[in-house]
Parts: sequence; structure tokens; C-alpha cells
Amino acid sequence: MFTNRYLQDAFKVPLVIQLTDDEKCMWKNLSVEESQRLARENAKDIIACGFDVTKTFIFSDFDYVGGAFYKNMVKVAKCVTYNKVVGIFGFTGEDHIGKVSFPPVQAVPSFPSSFPHLFSGKDHLRCLIPCAIDQDPYFRMTRDVAPRIGYHKPALIESSFFPALQGETGKMSASDPNSAIYVTDSAKAIKNKINKYAFSGGQESVELHRKLGANLEVDIPVKYLSFFLEDDAELEHIKKEYGAGGMLTGEVKQRLAKVLTELVERHQVARAAVTDEMVDAFMAVRPLPNMFD
Amino acid sequence: MFTNRYLQDAFKVPLVIQLTDDEKCMWKNLSVEESQRLARENAKDIIACGFDVTKTFIFSDFDYVGGAFYKNMVKVAKCVTYNKVVGIFGFTGEDHIGKVSFPPVQAVPSFPSSFPHLFSGKDHLRCLIPCAIDQDPYFRMTRDVAPRIGYHKPALIESSFFPALQGETGKMSASDPNSAIYVTDSAKAIKNKINKYAFSGGQESVELHRKLGANLEVDIPVKYLSFFLEDDAELEHIKKEYGAGGMLTGEVKQRLAKVLTELVERHQVARAAVTDEMVDAFMAVRPLPNMFD
Repeated sequence: MFTNRYLQDAFKVPLVIQLTDDEKCMWKNLSVEESQRLARENAKDIIACGFDVTKTFIFSDFDYVGGAFYKNMVKVAKCVTYNKVVGIFGFTGEDHIGKVSFPPVQAVPSFPSSFPHLFSGKDHLRCLIPCAIDQDPYFRMTRDVAPRIGYHKPALIESSFFPALQGETGKMSASDPNSAIYVTDSAKAIKNKINKYAFSGGQESVELHRKLGANLEVDIPVKYLSFFLEDDAELEHIKKEYGAGGMLTGEVKQRLAKVLTELVERHQVARAAVTDEMVDAFMAVRPLPNMFD
Repeated sequence: MFTNRYLQDAFKVPLVIQLTDDEKCMWKNLSVEESQRLARENAKDIIACGFDVTKTFIFSDFDYVGGAFYKNMVKVAKCVTYNKVVGIFGFTGEDHIGKVSFPPVQAVPSFPSSFPHLFSGKDHLRCLIPCAIDQDPYFRMTRDVAPRIGYHKPALIESSFFPALQGETGKMSASDPNSAIYVTDSAKAIKNKINKYAFSGGQESVELHRKLGANLEVDIPVKYLSFFLEDDAELEHIKKEYGAGGMLTGEVKQRLAKVLTELVERHQVARAAVTDEMVDAFMAVRPLPNMFD
């Protein structure tokens, strides 16, 4: 999200955000209605990041699939065999055909012609997709297909995953609320999670720590600070001191809790200010005026 | 088509006609644009049969897929495994995923909620689908899925296929223009095709024919007359005379040519009167006023 926000600020480009509520419905076995509700909640979190409504179109698949978008889905589907998607996504014969049908849905926002209200007559536009690394298979497939149907390949910026609080080997999981900090967490919950669960690279005793310093390679508070601490000089200072044993784990965790609490509270204030009308405005199928200004 | 027309006249029911241009695009490797053009041509032939525009909604998948229709597609797709569609349709791993994705598109017009502009709040309506027998697998699948997603099963009236001119064992084929009479054929072409290609159950010589009579089981002119001759008494008379050798193949073929020429010419006149505006009117997404009157 911050990547997207940064890119829009830096390059003044139109931004299209796809909410794959159909995917959630099919993979997580949610009802259509619940998937749509969650997509709108998701849209609120996105809007709270501060996107420019005059340059941003947010759509949900359940709302928007159809017309030019559906035509592109069919064009893509014709170029991809079942064996191919099995190779890419590992589907089995017992998977439902909704899963098999989905890759083109994720692929076609790469093509300007899927959005005639935005890019009519601008088929030459190039598309840049900032996404998490796990989405890469969809866009490898898309890049493979694009030239065969006369479209440009999309370019990608892929973000790595955040490590779980428990450490690099753990996995953030929705089923374990202690594996991640949520944007809905209170200051107290953040402090508690970090102190209790964030895997430390510090030594077993203060004496040993003063002597050996922290192992920054495995230390989660330092990794999180690398993402969230804006001040690079301070980050370097912390790494140096902590790595040399001058700073203790508790101090680093305290700094991280402060950074994250500020971030989360800022988000929560912004999120609370997002109205249904704002969501409707971002999700309205409309031209974006002056979108390249 | 005549089945549909008859049913609408008899029961005064709203009629929804699906033109699967996406299917043509995917199976016959036509472009999206060409498939859409053919769908409109097809719509003109349908309209020429005399449907009531106040009770008939014709749609093409490329135009209409989306919204409530797409939501139902996802609901259906979630209930059908890949193994299942392989069992039903015989897909292989080298078939493209467009084919695997298509069955739900054909299934969901069975459900009133796919057409909110027609049947909003009328989810209890039952759907009757007159179709050719080759479409049966789609609706067996649909009937299997319907109760699992809270919908009524559609009912079906299935028409058998017309035999090819060359006989029951032959197959009408678009690649052999002499295998069928087209609604675009001239009177001369119809006469020529019937005389030259229609498989006869008559005997090898007039003498033998007078003695043994025609084999009506394999005689194509008689089979065609069974479909197209409105006068049942005349049909019985022909069968009796021809089967006993009193009537010759040439006479029966002449009668068939006359019947078909009248039918085709009537259609051609009606077809020529169908304007693009009429197609737009039938295909407009709109409520049907008084559709149950």
C-alpha cells in the first residue's frame, strides 16, 4: 500500500486497485455477500493511506467483471491450457473450476483496454504492478500471454513478505493473532505483542549481551524497524549499538512499539474518517480527470 | 426456435435467450469482435421468427456477463470440480481454461437472480429451457448444483437433431454446405440440394418401387416433411402412398422443396425487415412490462 501511495505521489500516475472479492469467495469459502463486505472494509483501509481520489480507481471483481474486462478474460483464457495452470498454481482435479477460471481475472487489469472509462484509446500505456511476491505466478502467466493477444507485458515491483513476530521461520497467520501487529490493535496490545512474541536476537543475559551484542540477522524488532523507522540515521545508530551490546532488547522493542503505535494510531484516525460516500467515490466507474497531470 | 416461439405464444411467459458469443470465440477460435457480430446476426434470425419484444430479452454473454450474473457464475463454479467437468465434457489437460470456465456461464441463465432487471424479488420462478439435446450435459450439471446454492432446478424440453440431407448416419456440418438447407438458400438451391442430396428410401427402379414401396425409416424427404409439413392429414397420406409405392421419390421431394421454399422465403422476408434498432430493442437491459400478462 505504501509502495502504491509512494508511486502515485512520485509519478502522478493513475492507479487502479483490484479487490479480488471473487477470489476470497472461492478460496476461503465465504459467501458472495460477505466477500463483498470485506472488500469494502479493505477499500477503507486503502483509502485511509491517503490516495488521491482524482487519480485512483478501486474496483471489486464482483462489481466490475463484465464488458471489456470480461472480453479480455476470454482472450487470456484462450491462451492458457489447463496443464499450464496446474504447473503454475498446482491445482488438482478435486479443485473446483472457479479456481481454474480465476487466473484471467487477476491478469487482465494489466491491460488498459480492461478499463475503457479510464484508458479508452490509450492501449499503448504500460502498466506497473506493485504486489507481494506471492502474486508473481499470476503475472508471469500474464506476461507470457500479453504479446500473444497484442498487449504490452506488465512490469512488476514485488514486495517481500513481512516476517512473523515469532521470527523468519514463522509465518504470519490469520489464525494466530499474535503472529502479527494489526492496524486495529491498541497501543497496549502492540506493546504486549512486541514484548512477549517478537523474536529477539539479544543474548540470554544482560552480561552476555553487553559482551556479544545482538544477532541482528534474526532479530525481529530490528527487521520491523528497518521497514517502519523513517529516520535512516537513527536506524543505523540502533543497529550499531544493539549489535555491539550497548543497547538492550527491551530498549529496541520499546522504540519499535512507539513507531508502530504512532503508525497504527494515525491509520486508525484516518480509517475512522473514511465514509461510505468516500468508498463509493473511489469505486465509481468514472473517467479520472487530468489523470496524467 | 419454433419451440420457443410456440411456448411463448401458448403460455404468455417471459423468454430469455442467451447468445453464447464467448463460447463461439473460445471453441471456434473466432475473434471477440467476429463472435459478437455473428451473435447479432443470429439475433436477427431469432427475431425474424416473430418473438414478442415486450416479453423477450436476448443477450450476448460478452455484453451481459457481470454483476448478478457473474456472482451466480462464481457460486456455480464453486460447486463443480475439475474432475467433474472432465467427466461431463471430456476436457483434456491441453484444452484451454476458457473451456473449463464456460459451463457456469451456460448454467446461470437458469436462475432468475441472474437477471435482476427482469426478476428482482422473484427468485421462486421456475425456468424451462427448450434446447437441443447436445446441451443436456450443461443442464444436468446445473440441476445437480442448483439446490446446493439455494436455487430451483431448471426443467428442460430437449429437441432431437435434424438428420443431414445425406441420411441419418450423416451429420449436418458447416463445412459441407450440401448437408443442410440454410435459411439463406434460394428456391433453386433448395430444389437442387433436395433432388441431388436428400437420401431416398425409394427403390432402384420405378417398377421395383411400385411393387415394394419406399423405406420410410431411412427416407430423408419424409423425415423432413414430418418436421415441416403443418397438415398432419397430408403427411399421413404421403407416408401411406409413398410407403406403398403409389407415390414416387420425385413427387415427395417436390413437395418438400415447396414446403421448405415457402418457409425459407417467409423467413428471408421477415429477416430482411429486422433492423439494427430492433436488435437493440430486444437486447436492451430493461424490465419487461406486464411480462406475465
